[in-house]
Amino acid sequence: MSSHIGKNISVSVFGQSHSAGIGCVVEGIPAGHQIDREALSAFMRRRAPGGLPWSTPRKEADEPEFLGGLVGDITCGAPLAAVIRNTNTRSSDYDALRRIPRPGHADYVAEVKFGGHQDASGGGHFSGRLTAPLCIAGGIAKQLLEESDVYVGAHLRRVAGIDDVAWDMHALTAEDVIAPGEKLFPVVDDRAGERMMDAIVEARSNRDSVGAVVECAAVGMPVGVGEPMFDGVENAIAAYCFGIPAVKGVEFGRGFEAADMKGSEHNDPYCMDGDRVAFRSNNAGGILGGISTGEPIVFRVAFKPTSSIFVEQDSVDLKDGADAKLSLKGRHDPCVAVRAVPVVEAVCALALYDLLLEERMDR
Amino acid sequence: MSSHIGKNISVSVFGQSHSAGIGCVVEGIPAGHQIDREALSAFMRRRAPGGLPWSTPRKEADEPEFLGGLVGDITCGAPLAAVIRNTNTRSSDYDALRRIPRPGHADYVAEVKFGGHQDASGGGHFSGRLTAPLCIAGGIAKQLLEESDVYVGAHLRRVAGIDDVAWDMHALTAEDVIAPGEKLFPVVDDRAGERMMDAIVEARSNRDSVGAVVECAAVGMPVGVGEPMFDGVENAIAAYCFGIPAVKGVEFGRGFEAADMKGSEHNDPYCMDGDRVAFRSNNAGGILGGISTGEPIVFRVAFKPTSSIFVEQDSVDLKDGADAKLSLKGRHDPCVAVRAVPVVEAVCALALYDLLLEERMDR
Amino acid sequence: MSSHIGKNISVSVFGQSHSAGIGCVVEGIPAGHQIDREALSAFMRRRAPGGLPWSTPRKEADEPEFLGGLVGDITCGAPLAAVIRNTNTRSSDYDALRRIPRPGHADYVAEVKFGGHQDASGGGHFSGRLTAPLCIAGGIAKQLLEESDVYVGAHLRRVAGIDDVAWDMHALTAEDVIAPGEKLFPVVDDRAGERMMDAIVEARSNRDSVGAVVECAAVGMPVGVGEPMFDGVENAIAAYCFGIPAVKGVEFGRGFEAADMKGSEHNDPYCMDGDRVAFRSNNAGGILGGISTGEPIVFRVAFKPTSSIFVEQDSVDLKDGADAKLSLKGRHDPCVAVRAVPVVEAVCALALYDLLLEERMDR
Amino acid sequence: MSSHIGKNISVSVFGQSHSAGIGCVVEGIPAGHQIDREALSAFMRRRAPGGLPWSTPRKEADEPEFLGGLVGDITCGAPLAAVIRNTNTRSSDYDALRRIPRPGHADYVAEVKFGGHQDASGGGHFSGRLTAPLCIAGGIAKQLLEESDVYVGAHLRRVAGIDDVAWDMHALTAEDVIAPGEKLFPVVDDRAGERMMDAIVEARSNRDSVGAVVECAAVGMPVGVGEPMFDGVENAIAAYCFGIPAVKGVEFGRGFEAADMKGSEHNDPYCMDGDRVAFRSNNAGGILGGISTGEPIVFRVAFKPTSSIFVEQDSVDLKDGADAKLSLKGRHDPCVAVRAVPVVEAVCALALYDLLLEERMDR
Repeated sequence: MSSHIGKNISVSVFGQSHSAGIGCVVEGIPAGHQIDREALSAFMRRRAPGGLPWSTPRKEADEPEFLGGLVGDITCGAPLAAVIRNTNTRSSDYDALRRIPRPGHADYVAEVKFGGHQDASGGGHFSGRLTAPLCIAGGIAKQLLEESDVYVGAHLRRVAGIDDVAWDMHALTAEDVIAPGEKLFPVVDDRAGERMMDAIVEARSNRDSVGAVVECAAVGMPVGVGEPMFDGVENAIAAYCFGIPAVKGVEFGRGFEAADMKGSEHNDPYCMDGDRVAFRSNNAGGILGGISTGEPIVFRVAFKPTSSIFVEQDSVDLKDGADAKLSLKGRHDPCVAVRAVPVVEAVCALALYDLLLEERMDR
Repeated sequence: MSSHIGKNISVSVFGQSHSAGIGCVVEGIPAGHQIDREALSAFMRRRAPGGLPWSTPRKEADEPEFLGGLVGDITCGAPLAAVIRNTNTRSSDYDALRRIPRPGHADYVAEVKFGGHQDASGGGHFSGRLTAPLCIAGGIAKQLLEESDVYVGAHLRRVAGIDDVAWDMHALTAEDVIAPGEKLFPVVDDRAGERMMDAIVEARSNRDSVGAVVECAAVGMPVGVGEPMFDGVENAIAAYCFGIPAVKGVEFGRGFEAADMKGSEHNDPYCMDGDRVAFRSNNAGGILGGISTGEPIVFRVAFKPTSSIFVEQDSVDLKDGADAKLSLKGRHDPCVAVRAVPVVEAVCALALYDLLLEERMDR
Repeated sequence: MSSHIGKNISVSVFGQSHSAGIGCVVEGIPAGHQIDREALSAFMRRRAPGGLPWSTPRKEADEPEFLGGLVGDITCGAPLAAVIRNTNTRSSDYDALRRIPRPGHADYVAEVKFGGHQDASGGGHFSGRLTAPLCIAGGIAKQLLEESDVYVGAHLRRVAGIDDVAWDMHALTAEDVIAPGEKLFPVVDDRAGERMMDAIVEARSNRDSVGAVVECAAVGMPVGVGEPMFDGVENAIAAYCFGIPAVKGVEFGRGFEAADMKGSEHNDPYCMDGDRVAFRSNNAGGILGGISTGEPIVFRVAFKPTSSIFVEQDSVDLKDGADAKLSLKGRHDPCVAVRAVPVVEAVCALALYDLLLEERMDR
Repeated sequence: MSSHIGKNISVSVFGQSHSAGIGCVVEGIPAGHQIDREALSAFMRRRAPGGLPWSTPRKEADEPEFLGGLVGDITCGAPLAAVIRNTNTRSSDYDALRRIPRPGHADYVAEVKFGGHQDASGGGHFSGRLTAPLCIAGGIAKQLLEESDVYVGAHLRRVAGIDDVAWDMHALTAEDVIAPGEKLFPVVDDRAGERMMDAIVEARSNRDSVGAVVECAAVGMPVGVGEPMFDGVENAIAAYCFGIPAVKGVEFGRGFEAADMKGSEHNDPYCMDGDRVAFRSNNAGGILGGISTGEPIVFRVAFKPTSSIFVEQDSVDLKDGADAKLSLKGRHDPCVAVRAVPVVEAVCALALYDLLLEERMDR
């Protein structure tokens, strides 16, 4: 079993929901880069709960301690290691979860896979809490990309069937992609955001949950980053995205819509823009043959509705080998995608920065 | 730059469209497995052109020669190396392609990335022809999975906006997934297939092309295969799928549809089926937390319309730095997804077999 | 830059000599294995300073805290993450080391490589202190190997030109390999050990240091572990060993001596031992073609003399660009190899356990 | 099982001694480099048999065919794939080797590991013949290093107890390291060479074989290449070297001799050489902390005597489970190290070029 990913920037995520701590080791960050700790904390707060009416009131300070990799705030070339202490360790619901698995969670498959030895408490290593270390790593990758004028941002493209404004993939600017992340609720159109919030609150009052689509973009990537076949921009981003709990689909450019298009509609024509080769459209989402085109890289990620719901559900009692009813208690985000918006940005930044380093070797 | 993928089964694909040959090296296949060469050839013929009215009449024998890894037809533990000779080498359209890039192709990004040294002829290493070696590797992986009673199959779920019958993800059997591949046109409902064929022929007569969605499933995977976070079933399949040219989206289970569902609708309830834990539905597409649930693994892949179309297109002349018109000649598949159906099966089998080997270590 | 190694058991080591902490993340340990914390602490104390007259009196408690990967003392399948806090952080000798590099250390190459951003304090990520996390990982690997009746041990084969008894590679038992590690000074022949200690004390009184050879063996490895070519037993052990500071050579079986032998002397003849195929000798050190033969695996590791010596040395002042004299202060082990004996065992165990897991897949 | 190695330059070697062909896939070579095919052929001829009185008269044309990766003679960025056809396939001694394993060979361990399915003929994937593809890959890496003024060469440092002149590790020039490879018998001192040849001829007339030490150096490596811990220059070179059949030891700089030295003798003092930091000696073999110092990189590789000898040897009959006598027929090199000299250069070049690419990312 492994929990690491990446070639030039290798990210290893460790810890369980209720273990002593969670964290990450990031290898491959060149020496000499100043980390803006304030900006990193601000980025991580976007993932932290609280602030919004429906959000889980669990307290997660989530302030990382850096054990290695920095001298002051400057990277020193050694692996970057960061830890967040868990304050809520060894909860009492441990045995219950192992006995009656929660539908939509990994409880049952983990019980089988790990022969009953998994850390069931709080979801263990499968917990959404593990996305916090991903945000440390990705938040730093975002800063490193910004040094090269590459900007990554995301917004809630759709929640509970309610659409935000779709980004114009061809016209998208750095300002556009950054804007939603500066809001408490990351959308382009705040009125759509209010309708989404209403839907989330309603789901919560029904003890239910809703799904969502997150749209993410990177503006400023130079032409020629990414490799043919298996190390392309799409492969890298997708491999990372499916590491985020609840993700069930990833699409680039026009994505599944492209399946209904004609070649004459979908092909992005070239044109000269002064001395520069340009595109007239960006249906490709900034990627051809796995390689960046210089247009904004745009993709969408489908999140299933939160699995933890509070209506009574059918399950089984693994000990008795009998059907059982499950009534969860506690509080959970009724739409995990809201807090996952910065996580999508994080993995996008990690995937792209890794490929950007690769590109340096090709020259 | 790398063109390999996989941990326990490592696949490296080499060659260019018009180089002396294409092929693959597959490392990690245990010794002692008999390869059914007949079955492998039959599988590869599904990818080969010809037979259907619109398909490109290029002749590709595509019969692999095994240089290593077998004693007779039995794997010997050494890397499996297979080669297909290219008969069409060094075409004359080389310079034209480098000068006026084809919209939707990698011509331009490759020119920038490789400083003009890429093998432009026939699309080079980006060519769909490179999926033939993937089918050698994947065809063998399919046979190895079948030894463990895991069956992989796919069908054209949608072409040019025309739907085939959607698979019932919960009820799907080995027979169901195998059936479409035994037809000349891989669909469940042959009437839908005829309408799709009509649409493809029409697109071709309009010198245009159409996109499609391929649905793929694996039946028989035991519970507990796949790893949390970055080595999950979804990560592995997605990373492989985006190595197939023209793929722009991958979704598992309900996929993007899940984004519009409520948790109470999407969660798959458990129930006892005799002594066995079972599910009442399979919205998860057979995967929870990256790990197989024992239900059929089901995913869909979006293919953009073929980039090679024969209407006049806007492009640029890279030599003159001026706008230019491009009129492609020759013949191409107006819907690449048709021949890509076995390719999707191939990468699915490779991803799953790799994880199945991983699982053996966990015990 | 990366600091991880291994395929099935992946070890990532992080931290610097004077950063907030050092530690490791170990991925791939199957769930359900009980870790003997007492035995692990005892193993780590063998590496810790103190006890012997010449050893550095620095206090290193070196008690690891496990942040993840365990439920109680049982592995849970999630990555094992362990941290040791550094109590001595940010020392004042930082700038001096960057200005006048110590001969035999990485100070100068790190200055060039990391553009002056390396963590120079205490040797940073190059410090021998980083072998402590290796001992956590390796101490656990030793325990896992013992579950399969594989025993790893080492002794000081030669110090300052003084020889310990050479192990009989063919007759070596589990008891033999374990015995030296149970002594304060890990040798077979205690009289040789006393002469070694005298030589070390003498070197120290001369403000100098001495080199050594460590001999390590694994008894009980089944036949057939390891892979041809690049994933053989020798490749794996050697790649790990050169990660230990001060190692300058690794040899297996007869090693460099084999270069002076005839084939008729070196080849190990086969014979039947009842129903079992056996060897009459073990010049191969338990490895043929990269694969274990069932005989004890035996190798030797050459350690250069400690680089930190206290006689005045010639160096340069990097700031002034002029020759300079360097007089180190403080206390250091005059023979790093003594404390490195368990480190060699640790990396041997990690390399072998990784290959043992690999072997499970081959079946 | 895998037969590939490397991170930025990944080399996969395939084929068996008597399969249809052998070859390699090399991923990661940047586009735009001209390969000197003449020079490559000349390099490969150094490994080919023939020319010397004792060498095996087997005919191996060993001229590689490039299936992919080149446009003309210029790298195009796609994986480099090269094949050498085997003319001697499926020999008749197949069953004999499986039944009575040759001492010193991998016959027996392969029989156990692969359950009797290994390709036993001619040594299969374990054959020294597999070093030919390594020389293709490494011969190209040598050329790429030469573009950066890094020169790799090797000589027979010791054969059958007879010493060639030891290289002065500090004073070594590009001319020095290249010179031995331009001779039929790669030594510095031709009189020593003649004595070595006499010893080899004598061993052959006695139906026996002799071992040797190969010394290899790389001149011109800039300061700062290689990574701390597990991706150091020593780790990389050693991991590659043990992939060469018959290698039993690798040492850098003073190597095992360093174990008998004092720190005051071994530490290489710094001095200014004009504006440049220089060393007064090179006991470190050009590597400190895994990183190149700018001094020549020097290492030695111990080769055991050829396992194939023609005196009668004790073995076992695996079919009958009884002791047996083995009398090999045919002709083999009585000293494999002679032809292995370019192979050592090849793997050195591959390891160093990989790290040189890595270094480009650190900036």
